[in-house]
Amino acid sequence: MIYGKGFSLLKEKFVKEWNLYTNHKFIKKLSDNTLEKKVFLNYLIQDYLFLYQFSKAWSLALVKAESLNEMKLCATTVNEIVNFEMSLHERICQSYGITKKNLQTAEEKNKNIAYTRYVLEKGYSGDFLDLLTALVPCAIGYAEIGRNIKKSKPRNKMYKKWIATYSGKEYQTVAKNVGKLFDNSIKIRLGNDYIKTYKWKKIQGIFKRATLLEIDFWEMAFE
Amino acid sequence: MIYGKGFSLLKEKFVKEWNLYTNHKFIKKLSDNTLEKKVFLNYLIQDYLFLYQFSKAWSLALVKAESLNEMKLCATTVNEIVNFEMSLHERICQSYGITKKNLQTAEEKNKNIAYTRYVLEKGYSGDFLDLLTALVPCAIGYAEIGRNIKKSKPRNKMYKKWIATYSGKEYQTVAKNVGKLFDNSIKIRLGNDYIKTYKWKKIQGIFKRATLLEIDFWEMAFE
Amino acid sequence: MIYGKGFSLLKEKFVKEWNLYTNHKFIKKLSDNTLEKKVFLNYLIQDYLFLYQFSKAWSLALVKAESLNEMKLCATTVNEIVNFEMSLHERICQSYGITKKNLQTAEEKNKNIAYTRYVLEKGYSGDFLDLLTALVPCAIGYAEIGRNIKKSKPRNKMYKKWIATYSGKEYQTVAKNVGKLFDNSIKIRLGNDYIKTYKWKKIQGIFKRATLLEIDFWEMAFE
Amino acid sequence: MIYGKGFSLLKEKFVKEWNLYTNHKFIKKLSDNTLEKKVFLNYLIQDYLFLYQFSKAWSLALVKAESLNEMKLCATTVNEIVNFEMSLHERICQSYGITKKNLQTAEEKNKNIAYTRYVLEKGYSGDFLDLLTALVPCAIGYAEIGRNIKKSKPRNKMYKKWIATYSGKEYQTVAKNVGKLFDNSIKIRLGNDYIKTYKWKKIQGIFKRATLLEIDFWEMAFE
Repeated sequence: MIYGKGFSLLKEKFVKEWNLYTNHKFIKKLSDNTLEKKVFLNYLIQDYLFLYQFSKAWSLALVKAESLNEMKLCATTVNEIVNFEMSLHERICQSYGITKKNLQTAEEKNKNIAYTRYVLEKGYSGDFLDLLTALVPCAIGYAEIGRNIKKSKPRNKMYKKWIATYSGKEYQTVAKNVGKLFDNSIKIRLGNDYIKTYKWKKIQGIFKRATLLEIDFWEMAFE
Repeated sequence: MIYGKGFSLLKEKFVKEWNLYTNHKFIKKLSDNTLEKKVFLNYLIQDYLFLYQFSKAWSLALVKAESLNEMKLCATTVNEIVNFEMSLHERICQSYGITKKNLQTAEEKNKNIAYTRYVLEKGYSGDFLDLLTALVPCAIGYAEIGRNIKKSKPRNKMYKKWIATYSGKEYQTVAKNVGKLFDNSIKIRLGNDYIKTYKWKKIQGIFKRATLLEIDFWEMAFE
Repeated sequence: MIYGKGFSLLKEKFVKEWNLYTNHKFIKKLSDNTLEKKVFLNYLIQDYLFLYQFSKAWSLALVKAESLNEMKLCATTVNEIVNFEMSLHERICQSYGITKKNLQTAEEKNKNIAYTRYVLEKGYSGDFLDLLTALVPCAIGYAEIGRNIKKSKPRNKMYKKWIATYSGKEYQTVAKNVGKLFDNSIKIRLGNDYIKTYKWKKIQGIFKRATLLEIDFWEMAFE
Repeated sequence: MIYGKGFSLLKEKFVKEWNLYTNHKFIKKLSDNTLEKKVFLNYLIQDYLFLYQFSKAWSLALVKAESLNEMKLCATTVNEIVNFEMSLHERICQSYGITKKNLQTAEEKNKNIAYTRYVLEKGYSGDFLDLLTALVPCAIGYAEIGRNIKKSKPRNKMYKKWIATYSGKEYQTVAKNVGKLFDNSIKIRLGNDYIKTYKWKKIQGIFKRATLLEIDFWEMAFE
């Protein structure tokens, strides 16, 4: 329940999809060091392109926010991604031989587009809660994955670093805050009896779809 | 050149992608009657769900239009899809044993989402020209496909009907009008020397991506 | 209650604002023939420019709609405004000496912008219900005004025609359909107990604001 | 020319509107200490509400940005407004007897709505350049006003503080960076010969309108 009841209910209802996402063979192979390097680099490049759209989605969330508190959390998230995380990502890629030019000339793959445009379109067409729901599987899923494989010790330094990042305290706190924001946003807008509302049905649909698109994101790395 | 120079240049530049889309095995199989019925029905259901988003995209184009002329063409298109084409589609599906309930409970597949949300997001984030560019491969591509296989005579009535629709005069005129609108929109906004502009580069990227997503749409039917 | 309970509750709560809008001196003067012609023409030009944005708002409503029924009503409305009402408006203006060129070179006034951009922004940032709420005071208010002054017989032909239009059966039906759509949209999304929801508070704020901006729209004609 | 040629051309073309804005009696009265305190407080409250929408507009600009550089500047601006400037504003208001509750229950006036919703709608409907153009009169105008009245020494501490803020080095730098961003955005998208483009016409219209809406913002304080 560390991410709030709203998230727990969604995860429970779509536990099959959630497991296909969080226990994907990409994760298994990464944790037991059997992931091919080129698959990982493939992922890394697409993940960098993903961050562009992801920061835009959080920025759009600020536009859709309905209180200063919601705006503050979005502003902080956007600022961290755009002004810090992306440069960090560039440096990591650099150290693995992927130059900045490689990154800048890389093309988004269809499955990357599918996920990010789904999220952004949901944000534009819907409200803050719709958008946040689409962001939750990514934000919280990565934290859960990080914790799940925290103890695995792949020899490959990149894989070790990846696990350390998402299982690390900093990212775990980010995910917890997102969960809290999500839970509060639901309660404020839909009341405590939210599971009976029309909106909750819509939220379920969005959560499920975003999770399915996350699965495809892992698949993409093997293509 | 029946769709204007703008379209011709784009098709020429991405002729490989264009051919993969317009000569896809789905089309070949449909025209020589070797397409499995379940593949076609699969496509038909997704295409119905596609129409929802497609009419929304044309509706968004009206919001982004910059003249009454542009608005009129968009309004007509939306009205035809929503108030006529969709009911027609329902009736056709009905006659193939796909009930209205089947349609309403069908789930969009990821590749359907990829294409439609890409178009809609492009519409929201960009301007009229960006959005129109994303719509062109669908609107004009289907007319070209219709003409290409006009003379083939598959025994299956559904396939015959499909070919008749897209090779028919009515749809051919729709596509010509879209081509004209596209060409005028480019010239008005970018001038006659448009191929030298920054914007033209962006348009090329959008055209290519929408074409790639159309290829995936055919692929989806076989999954 | 002809427009449904949702509208009745809103009108009742903001009866002061509603009366300032529907009984504005512009209306009184128009009905007793004391309105200066130049004030009316001033209004007419701005109202023409308003129709551009108004049809865009209904078009955006289609993008935000959540069922085919909602989409159909939006598509019909947009089509009527863009493909018929605007040409009608042009012809009327022409007959009063306002040429098409006058219309096309006219500038939107700040109070026109205030109202239309408020509605559009509400549509972009919010959901279907937010947007519809912002459109309701205009759509239903004009029908109520029409009925209120139906029996007045200003000598001025323009004023007579204006009254005939909005008190006429056709427009009265349009308004009734909007009221019905509004009521259904509320119930579907918020349930029958909607007045207790968070969203209803937001809806009240939007309704009030749109009504205040309508008052300013009349004021604008006298500037 | 400190804000780039693009801005200079726009200011020159609309010098009449620009002067009505930057030399408004609100500014004159503030600088010679004849501004009524209640007028200033009126302004201060509306300006606080304005910051909500303004930070949303900059956040939307990030969504519409087309390079990491553009995104970075937007992220920094949003973060400063939301996480610092707004709390500062709250403290200032507090010290003038306007409690946080006053601020939170204050209603936006129509002229405030007019300006902010115009900017946001321009951002949603248009592209990055459209949105940035709508933001420029505010961002650069306040810096120019600050410099113009830097030497005036009103006795009222609030007025002194206001002048110090906008004439101060920090804000002057912000404005310079916005000018630079604006100029680069124009050149990248429209080339060096931008004054001949269709888009430049649109930009002129947006700049003019935003300036007119700024004038109304000052007027609002006296109502």
